[in-house]
Amino acid sequence: MSAMTKTAQQPAFTLGTATMDDFEAVKEIFLHVVDEGETYSYERGELTDEWIRNYWLKNVITTLVARLPDGKVAGVCAIRVNRTGRGDHIANASYIVHHDHRGIGIGYALGLESLTDAKQYGYKAMQFNYVVSTNAKAVALWQSLGFKIIGTMPQGYRHERHGLVDVYMMHRFLDNV
Amino acid sequence: MSAMTKTAQQPAFTLGTATMDDFEAVKEIFLHVVDEGETYSYERGELTDEWIRNYWLKNVITTLVARLPDGKVAGVCAIRVNRTGRGDHIANASYIVHHDHRGIGIGYALGLESLTDAKQYGYKAMQFNYVVSTNAKAVALWQSLGFKIIGTMPQGYRHERHGLVDVYMMHRFLDNV
Repeated sequence: MSAMTKTAQQPAFTLGTATMDDFEAVKEIFLHVVDEGETYSYERGELTDEWIRNYWLKNVITTLVARLPDGKVAGVCAIRVNRTGRGDHIANASYIVHHDHRGIGIGYALGLESLTDAKQYGYKAMQFNYVVSTNAKAVALWQSLGFKIIGTMPQGYRHERHGLVDVYMMHRFLDNV
Repeated sequence: MSAMTKTAQQPAFTLGTATMDDFEAVKEIFLHVVDEGETYSYERGELTDEWIRNYWLKNVITTLVARLPDGKVAGVCAIRVNRTGRGDHIANASYIVHHDHRGIGIGYALGLESLTDAKQYGYKAMQFNYVVSTNAKAVALWQSLGFKIIGTMPQGYRHERHGLVDVYMMHRFLDNV
């Protein structure tokens, strides 16, 4: 069997659920994304290990990971309740993909799985509160998964390269997932 | 001097800065508003004293109060950073008015003062992330103070009387305050 055939039969990545053992891998991916300064508002100064663990692995409903064939984590999605109390019928989620493994469908796969999961947990909708408008690939990805832009914060984000840019809120009901 | 004349010369309320001594008064006003179930998403179960103190008095830039002539707190406004890091040029604020003292301009006065304060602290805009659409008086109040609706979360709020209703995001730049 040629290497090429073998590659074609092997999935590029598989989805699973994160454990606390994935912390260092999650941290590495996240901090790289943060340093890029193009998608997340958080900055290094506030990001203690405890903060990162809470955000991605502890204060969540569930955390999905995309693993490469060698087991390495290449993408992460944390699903949370968007707001407690009288807003707790809506889910929220965050996504990061390792910079060396972008463009192979990890974001799409995590996005699709997170919608299915959120629906199974009983949520009526998924809402993203902070999609940077210049992140065109993310905006297009979410639109391809049925999300609509429901709001625009003018000049809400101080982008590393572009300065102040708008930020979108995106939303999708889950009834037809 | 008649009582009427005296009343006319005395302001109905004055604005000042809250101290930790105002905690019980703030708590009473807030819990009544929460129990009304028409404006805030939070519900009793999550509202410990520590939570309330953090939300209104500690994890804030400043807290304004409206005091009646007898010193009683009749309204509260907590000003915060809307988002840390690359979104920290935008302020956020929460407002509550005691149910016995609504309709005399406390909300407007707190709103106006909070815009001036936020500008003085260097913020470029004030953003409200969660204005329940059926709260017509609040929506009109914020519009009268220059806010625009920049987003709508469909069915974002489980209203005590109306069921699922939309929630607005509202925003105002502070350059012309």
